[in-house]
Amino acid sequence: MAKPGLLLVPESSERMLGGALSDRFEVIRLWEAADPDELLAARGPDVVASLALRLDASLLERLPNLRLVVVPGAGYEHVDLAAARARGVRVANAGDAHSADVADHAVALVLASIHRLPAMQAWVQDGRWQAGLHPEPRHAMSAQRFGLVGLGNIGTAIAERLAPFGGKIAWWAPRDKPARWPRRKRLTDLAEWCTTLIVAVRGDAEGLVDAGTIDAVGPHGRIVNVSRGRVIDEDALVAALKDGRLGQAALDVFVEEPVSPDRWRDVPNVILTPHVAGVSCEAMQRLRHAAIRNLTSVLDGTPLVNELTA
Amino acid sequence: MAKPGLLLVPESSERMLGGALSDRFEVIRLWEAADPDELLAARGPDVVASLALRLDASLLERLPNLRLVVVPGAGYEHVDLAAARARGVRVANAGDAHSADVADHAVALVLASIHRLPAMQAWVQDGRWQAGLHPEPRHAMSAQRFGLVGLGNIGTAIAERLAPFGGKIAWWAPRDKPARWPRRKRLTDLAEWCTTLIVAVRGDAEGLVDAGTIDAVGPHGRIVNVSRGRVIDEDALVAALKDGRLGQAALDVFVEEPVSPDRWRDVPNVILTPHVAGVSCEAMQRLRHAAIRNLTSVLDGTPLVNELTA
Repeated sequence: MAKPGLLLVPESSERMLGGALSDRFEVIRLWEAADPDELLAARGPDVVASLALRLDASLLERLPNLRLVVVPGAGYEHVDLAAARARGVRVANAGDAHSADVADHAVALVLASIHRLPAMQAWVQDGRWQAGLHPEPRHAMSAQRFGLVGLGNIGTAIAERLAPFGGKIAWWAPRDKPARWPRRKRLTDLAEWCTTLIVAVRGDAEGLVDAGTIDAVGPHGRIVNVSRGRVIDEDALVAALKDGRLGQAALDVFVEEPVSPDRWRDVPNVILTPHVAGVSCEAMQRLRHAAIRNLTSVLDGTPLVNELTA
Repeated sequence: MAKPGLLLVPESSERMLGGALSDRFEVIRLWEAADPDELLAARGPDVVASLALRLDASLLERLPNLRLVVVPGAGYEHVDLAAARARGVRVANAGDAHSADVADHAVALVLASIHRLPAMQAWVQDGRWQAGLHPEPRHAMSAQRFGLVGLGNIGTAIAERLAPFGGKIAWWAPRDKPARWPRRKRLTDLAEWCTTLIVAVRGDAEGLVDAGTIDAVGPHGRIVNVSRGRVIDEDALVAALKDGRLGQAALDVFVEEPVSPDRWRDVPNVILTPHVAGVSCEAMQRLRHAAIRNLTSVLDGTPLVNELTA
């Protein structure tokens, strides 16, 4: 008898799994198919579980025996929870497996931009230092005002890491809640007040940081984004950086990923990383274990953890 | 009657003073003199105070009426304290005016190197990300072992800033003292144990981090230096980086400053900044106020603060 089918979507989910589970599942790789429709027509009914970053209603329709979707990570904005629920398919993610890593990376970007590490390295390497030129002094961390957009697990971890540096910290999110730091009434208030706006909201807040918010941060401020690219109006961000209306940006996420180098070629005062905030060896191992545990629950009847509900 | 003389050595001390005190002192700029010996012969006897980074016995001899030397900053390894004392000249520095800034910069260098920000930016900008290539995951901050060389004001401030990231912290210094973190018996023990060696000792510990220490940190480790260039055997450091025997280095200080770009042109895995760790606007203002207060004490008889004794 054939093993039950496990559908992987896309290739990154196989990398994350690292070869595990092939003894218990028949692994079906959607990205390898020359004709995905043909593959789904032939193999769709075998699939009982899926490790998937993206799963929409039309794909769900072709998986009549699917019982579980596991999202490899924290972000699940590309999985149609309502459609899954309507078909009786349970969905789980990896929970809080890498909030600390994302927070670490956010603070790395904050410090690198405030301390202007790329510009300072250029100062050494292009001979300006040797020529006796002195860069403008930075403002101290203790003189900064950090504005957190979102105070979930990641935002809270960022604030905890920034606290010993002595700057002021405030936050905004759509809903108020008890917190160690003060909340501003409106995002614009936070953007006007802060020297560094740190975007750590859920990824579904599309266009939240708009042109007006960017202008409120202003020419002496900076925006750091470790959420999702679409949370910021990226065209407005690029224009503001080019015009000098925004001082700096440090970004791990982009509207289109992977991003084209052309997109940022002539944009000044940026620090860019290829969506690696959550990607540490240790987080990958935790994600792998969480995914394997959840995927095998469909075979063994063990409890599902981090189940998501619409 | 002429105003008492204030000797500035070198030009950076005038920049630090920012035009202050010219109403109370006759400012004498040693670096402007075509013939410094001639200037000292003519004006040396007028000098009652000096703002100086470097002051040796031969210079002191030519300033018979000098009563006070103020060092603009924390490091005073280039001022001959014994010679000053022998001539009855008091010496003071700016005390702890910028320990926090130096610690901030050290943590910026630690995070930038662990998160490989220059390499990640190159990954985006040279199209490797667009080509679908994935960089090796970094190790998480929580999996790091931070080894502090020196646990004075700066080392302690670094440890306090690193604590929320969750890694392990230990330290070594020649003398033991009560501390929140464990001390290793020998520098080599610390270097072998740590993933990141952070050099924050006093600047007079020349050659302390030698070739053996560097090899003990090893190909997966990194060295961060915010102390003084001469504390590390820089030739051994360069050789270890070129050979891959040391993983990374992040340096704000160098044996010769300003450093020639040629010195580091073909050295891989480095983050370099032009001795700016302590240079924030806010620290400069505190240093200026401390220097002005101390320099005017020689005229007004007000108490000298942060006096240094040999």
